[in-house]
Amino acid sequence: MTQDLNRQILLASRPEGVPTAQNFRLVEVSVPEPGEGEVLYRAIYLSLDPYHRGRMNAGESYAEPVPIDGVMGGSSVGIVVASRSPDFSPGDFVLGYGGWQDYAVTPGTDLRKLDPSQAPITASLGVLGMPGLTAYSGLLRIGEPKAGESVVVAAASGPVGGTVGQIARLKGCRTIGIAGTTEKCDFVRNELGFDDCISHRRDDLAAALAAACPDGIDVYFENVGGKVFDAVYPLLNFFARIPVCGVITRYNVADTPPGPDRLPGFLTDSLIKRFRTQGFIVTDFEDMYGDFARDMARWVREGKVRFKEDIVDGIENVPTTFIGLLAGKNFGKQLVRISDDPTR
Amino acid sequence: MTQDLNRQILLASRPEGVPTAQNFRLVEVSVPEPGEGEVLYRAIYLSLDPYHRGRMNAGESYAEPVPIDGVMGGSSVGIVVASRSPDFSPGDFVLGYGGWQDYAVTPGTDLRKLDPSQAPITASLGVLGMPGLTAYSGLLRIGEPKAGESVVVAAASGPVGGTVGQIARLKGCRTIGIAGTTEKCDFVRNELGFDDCISHRRDDLAAALAAACPDGIDVYFENVGGKVFDAVYPLLNFFARIPVCGVITRYNVADTPPGPDRLPGFLTDSLIKRFRTQGFIVTDFEDMYGDFARDMARWVREGKVRFKEDIVDGIENVPTTFIGLLAGKNFGKQLVRISDDPTR
Repeated sequence: MTQDLNRQILLASRPEGVPTAQNFRLVEVSVPEPGEGEVLYRAIYLSLDPYHRGRMNAGESYAEPVPIDGVMGGSSVGIVVASRSPDFSPGDFVLGYGGWQDYAVTPGTDLRKLDPSQAPITASLGVLGMPGLTAYSGLLRIGEPKAGESVVVAAASGPVGGTVGQIARLKGCRTIGIAGTTEKCDFVRNELGFDDCISHRRDDLAAALAAACPDGIDVYFENVGGKVFDAVYPLLNFFARIPVCGVITRYNVADTPPGPDRLPGFLTDSLIKRFRTQGFIVTDFEDMYGDFARDMARWVREGKVRFKEDIVDGIENVPTTFIGLLAGKNFGKQLVRISDDPTR
Repeated sequence: MTQDLNRQILLASRPEGVPTAQNFRLVEVSVPEPGEGEVLYRAIYLSLDPYHRGRMNAGESYAEPVPIDGVMGGSSVGIVVASRSPDFSPGDFVLGYGGWQDYAVTPGTDLRKLDPSQAPITASLGVLGMPGLTAYSGLLRIGEPKAGESVVVAAASGPVGGTVGQIARLKGCRTIGIAGTTEKCDFVRNELGFDDCISHRRDDLAAALAAACPDGIDVYFENVGGKVFDAVYPLLNFFARIPVCGVITRYNVADTPPGPDRLPGFLTDSLIKRFRTQGFIVTDFEDMYGDFARDMARWVREGKVRFKEDIVDGIENVPTTFIGLLAGKNFGKQLVRISDDPTR
């Protein structure tokens, strides 16, 4: 069916703390063939997302661990090469969960057809896909932003955080981002239209955030944990909502930090100020997909929600790019292009 | 209008940690007279509730602090002595927020008339009043118990916890209480009909709770914090809900306990297992009062919700009784009878 080989990134060993390139291995295997009802597609873009880190651990998490020497899971967009599903034909652009490899065979029922004339195919991995629905559902279902409230968003230049802040703005909220570099903060303010953006690298982070939130914080969309959470916590208003979407600062950490133990005090503050803290992952709110798809397509079309992509070339660069993502080195939605994109 | 004096319990000084009798002072003043639209009532029962401890502090909480040398606030039931409100007449039994004193003048709009033929007047301070609505609203609105789920309730022999468990049982849940003494645990099992009750004084609390919750915990109604929370935490199921109603073990504690710091891990677990943690106080859910009053009156009438009262006599015993309440020495809803009850 094809003379090519299928390049795959395997999980060679489980990272202890920060992943290293040695935790991964690039292999070449033969290209699989689709069975009845299945589709073979060649990936053009792999999506790298922080949640992959959790799947590298053996322990209980919200997804099954990737087995050692298994192909790393993950979403990709690509082009159908062969189809034994009546719903797909060679040449179709598709979104699938093919993993970190060139070629994937998947049931046709697990694929979504993409129309490059409607939106860039990469948007289905970002604002129009999982990160977009994550932002939309977590903010609206748990955050419940009301006009005039102050919404603080961590990792604000990323695909989830950037979208959260723009939706909050559309809902009439004052929106404050937190990001790494000055360049990212400028982007969040100037391109995404947040009211303000603070660098978490500032020595005076807590004071700067307090100054940017003169009326306190009503919704904190948590993506990171660590010192950003610590700066947010004392500013939380009565009845604050904290959708916990990610705690990227904790993904590489196995130990418990030294004391004092702030958990009992957090429960007390949750009572006194009636905080709502709720973790979620995107699949918890699949019932919102219809509303999301309608709203977000319109917002993107009308320019009300904007986004940025960070595209690296070459499957061999996936491990180092992923390691960089966990350290916040990406600027926008992280993608790796592993074959030519005929739509650009 | 009356020859009596009005005995009052004042807050003499702010407790540091555990309150002592020296933080309070009993004084006798003249009986006030009602102004236009106001009602003078003589208290029969004072309600002692854990939330009073928070009002003794100067710091920010969900209620205004009681001023030094001010009368301690609190609900009481009593009998109208004089009325300048068209809605009340001498001899009416009423529920009001008269504070820790014999006589209170209050706007008629702040009083609720009680019918002793329908329910004991004391029930309006317990299962049919604030503690009952606390249990009802927190469990149903935040806990969202579903049939077949496991619900763990701290302080299960108290007026809130005991009611929570009985409502959860009515909703088809497996209900496990946690209480202090063996006598309380027997009461919770045998009289209130919980499926099980564990003493928090057991050395093997964590193991005993785990054995009582073979399917984990879906709802933890938090009244206490401390070692009970610690035993519950590892048993929490995916999508567990934690209504935080009280953290009585923290009320007398100003410092932060030693490490390690479990807060970052709690946020991570909130994400992985999608816990919802939400503090509330009864006034947050006043919109539920109508449903509560209807449901609870029926459940009490039908014997489906039962309750126990712990009645101490004499206003001079209020401070020591309150101190005992914080240490869990009460057995059932804590009341202090400060004048004769003509209904019994």
